[in-house]
Amino acid sequence: MAQLERIGISLDKKLLSMFDKLITKQGYPSRSEAIRDLVRQQLSREQVGDPKSQAVAALFLVYDHHATKLIERLIRLQHSSTAGSHRTHAVHVISSLHVHLDEHDCLEIIVLRGRVGEINNIGENILSMKGVKLGRINLVAMGIGSES
Amino acid sequence: MAQLERIGISLDKKLLSMFDKLITKQGYPSRSEAIRDLVRQQLSREQVGDPKSQAVAALFLVYDHHATKLIERLIRLQHSSTAGSHRTHAVHVISSLHVHLDEHDCLEIIVLRGRVGEINNIGENILSMKGVKLGRINLVAMGIGSES
Amino acid sequence: MAQLERIGISLDKKLLSMFDKLITKQGYPSRSEAIRDLVRQQLSREQVGDPKSQAVAALFLVYDHHATKLIERLIRLQHSSTAGSHRTHAVHVISSLHVHLDEHDCLEIIVLRGRVGEINNIGENILSMKGVKLGRINLVAMGIGSES
Amino acid sequence: MAQLERIGISLDKKLLSMFDKLITKQGYPSRSEAIRDLVRQQLSREQVGDPKSQAVAALFLVYDHHATKLIERLIRLQHSSTAGSHRTHAVHVISSLHVHLDEHDCLEIIVLRGRVGEINNIGENILSMKGVKLGRINLVAMGIGSES
Repeated sequence: MAQLERIGISLDKKLLSMFDKLITKQGYPSRSEAIRDLVRQQLSREQVGDPKSQAVAALFLVYDHHATKLIERLIRLQHSSTAGSHRTHAVHVISSLHVHLDEHDCLEIIVLRGRVGEINNIGENILSMKGVKLGRINLVAMGIGSES
Repeated sequence: MAQLERIGISLDKKLLSMFDKLITKQGYPSRSEAIRDLVRQQLSREQVGDPKSQAVAALFLVYDHHATKLIERLIRLQHSSTAGSHRTHAVHVISSLHVHLDEHDCLEIIVLRGRVGEINNIGENILSMKGVKLGRINLVAMGIGSES
Repeated sequence: MAQLERIGISLDKKLLSMFDKLITKQGYPSRSEAIRDLVRQQLSREQVGDPKSQAVAALFLVYDHHATKLIERLIRLQHSSTAGSHRTHAVHVISSLHVHLDEHDCLEIIVLRGRVGEINNIGENILSMKGVKLGRINLVAMGIGSES
Repeated sequence: MAQLERIGISLDKKLLSMFDKLITKQGYPSRSEAIRDLVRQQLSREQVGDPKSQAVAALFLVYDHHATKLIERLIRLQHSSTAGSHRTHAVHVISSLHVHLDEHDCLEIIVLRGRVGEINNIGENILSMKGVKLGRINLVAMGIGSES
C-alpha cells in the first residue's frame, strides 16, 4: 500500500482558477490527482532522456503487409529480443498488437521493455525497414507509477 | 498497386553526406525510403493538427489495477465507443492490449479510430481518471500510408 | 500584487522523494515554485492548441544571408505586420534579434504577438522561404504569467 | 559556394500529390526546398539529442520583473558564461532580447552557444529560478545549415 504524504503549495488565485477550469474540462476528480499526473509526466520525461534508464516502450508502426519479408523480419527481431540474444540483450519484447487498417496497411504496436538507449536503437531499425510507412517510439519510465 | 513517380532533388554535398551517414546508422536501405518516411511524417503531423481529420490513435496508459472502478469504466467507455453512442459517436475502439508491469501497475494500449478532436476528448477523459498514472495519446493520420 | 492561495496536495512518499530529487537537481528553491511551473506549462500547452487564443511567439530561424531577397522579404513582412496590414492584421512583430553564426549563416529570432492561428500561418510562410534552412515556432500563451 | 548534387527519389503518386498540396500551402517555392528542410530538421533533431554535440540555443523565458534579484542573477550568469568561467566553460551567451509584455511580465530570449549537455544544464538552472514563470530551451544543431 502506498504511503501518502500531504504537502502545501501556494499559487496565485488567478493561476489556480485557470487550472481548476482546465482540470474540470479534462475530467479530473481533484487537484491532487491532476498535480500528481503533472509530477509523474515530468519525472518520466526526465528519465527517458537518459539512455541507461529502464523504460517500457510502445513502438507504433504503420506498414504495408505486402512488403516482402517485413513481417518475417519483425517476428525474427521480436523473438531474438525475447530470447535475449547478444545484439539486443537489454531489451525484451513483451507483447504486440496488430490492427488491419485497410487493404494495404496494418498498424502494429510492439511493447518493449529495457534500457532507453537500446530501445531507441531497435526502434530506429524497425522504423527504417522497407515497407514501414509511419512510426513512432513512445517511452514511459519504469518505477514512477509504482507505489511500494 | 501504387504508381511510383520519380522526382529529382538537389541538395548541397555536405548536407547529403550528413544525411547518408544518418540513414545508414538508422538502417535505411535507400535514400528514397528515408525521404518517403520524412514526407509521410510531415503530412501526418500536419493532418493530426486538424480536429476534423481522420486518424488512428494509440492511447497509452499506465494504471494501478487496484484502483476501484477504473477497469470497469475503461471497459464501459470502450464498449460505448464501439457501439457508437451519442457522446462518442465519431470514435471507435478497435482493439486494446494489456501488459502486467509489476504487482501494482498495468500498461494498457487502446487503439481508437475517428476524428482527431473526438479522440483527444476521449483520451483526456481517460487520462484524468483516478488511478491512471501516466499516459499519452499518439495520433497517426489515416490515408497517408495507403497506396491506391 | 498577486493574491496567493494555499492548497494541500497528497502524493505518495516515493513519488515525492523522486520529485524532490529532480527539482533539487534543476535548482528549484521550493516545491511550490516547481509545481507552479508545471501548472503554467500545462495551461500554456493547452492554450496554444487553440488557433483563436492570444499568444506571444518566438520564430527561430537559421538562414543564409547570401540568399537574395530573403532579408528584404523578412523586413517587409515584419513591417507590414507591425503596421497591421490586411493580410496579417492579427499579428504584430514586436522585435527581432539577429546573430551572425558563421560566414554563411545567421540566426534570426522574431518575436510576434497575436492569435495562434495567424502566428502559425506567418511562421510557415517564413520557414518555407528559399534560403531559410532551419526554423521553429515557439508559442507561449498570454495571460498565464500575469498575476493581477 | 555550396556544391549541389542532384539525386532521384521515387514516391508513389498519391503521396506526392498530398505533399505538393501541403508545401504549396506552406509557401515553398519548390519540392527541393521543402525536402531540404525536412532533411535538415531530421539531422538537427538527431544531433541535439547528443549532449556532446555543438548547438546554438534560444532560451525563451517569461518572468516577473518585480522578482527581486532575478535580473541581477540572469545578468551575472550571462556575464560569467561570456567570460568562460569554470562552471559554464563550454557555453557562451551570444546575445539577448528583452520584451515588455505587460505591467508584470517580461519575455527574455537568451541566445547561447556550446555543447548540448551544458546548455541544458544552464537552461534548467535559469528556468527554475524564482520569478521565472514559463520557459523553454530551443536547440538547433550547428554545422547543418552551413554550406562550405
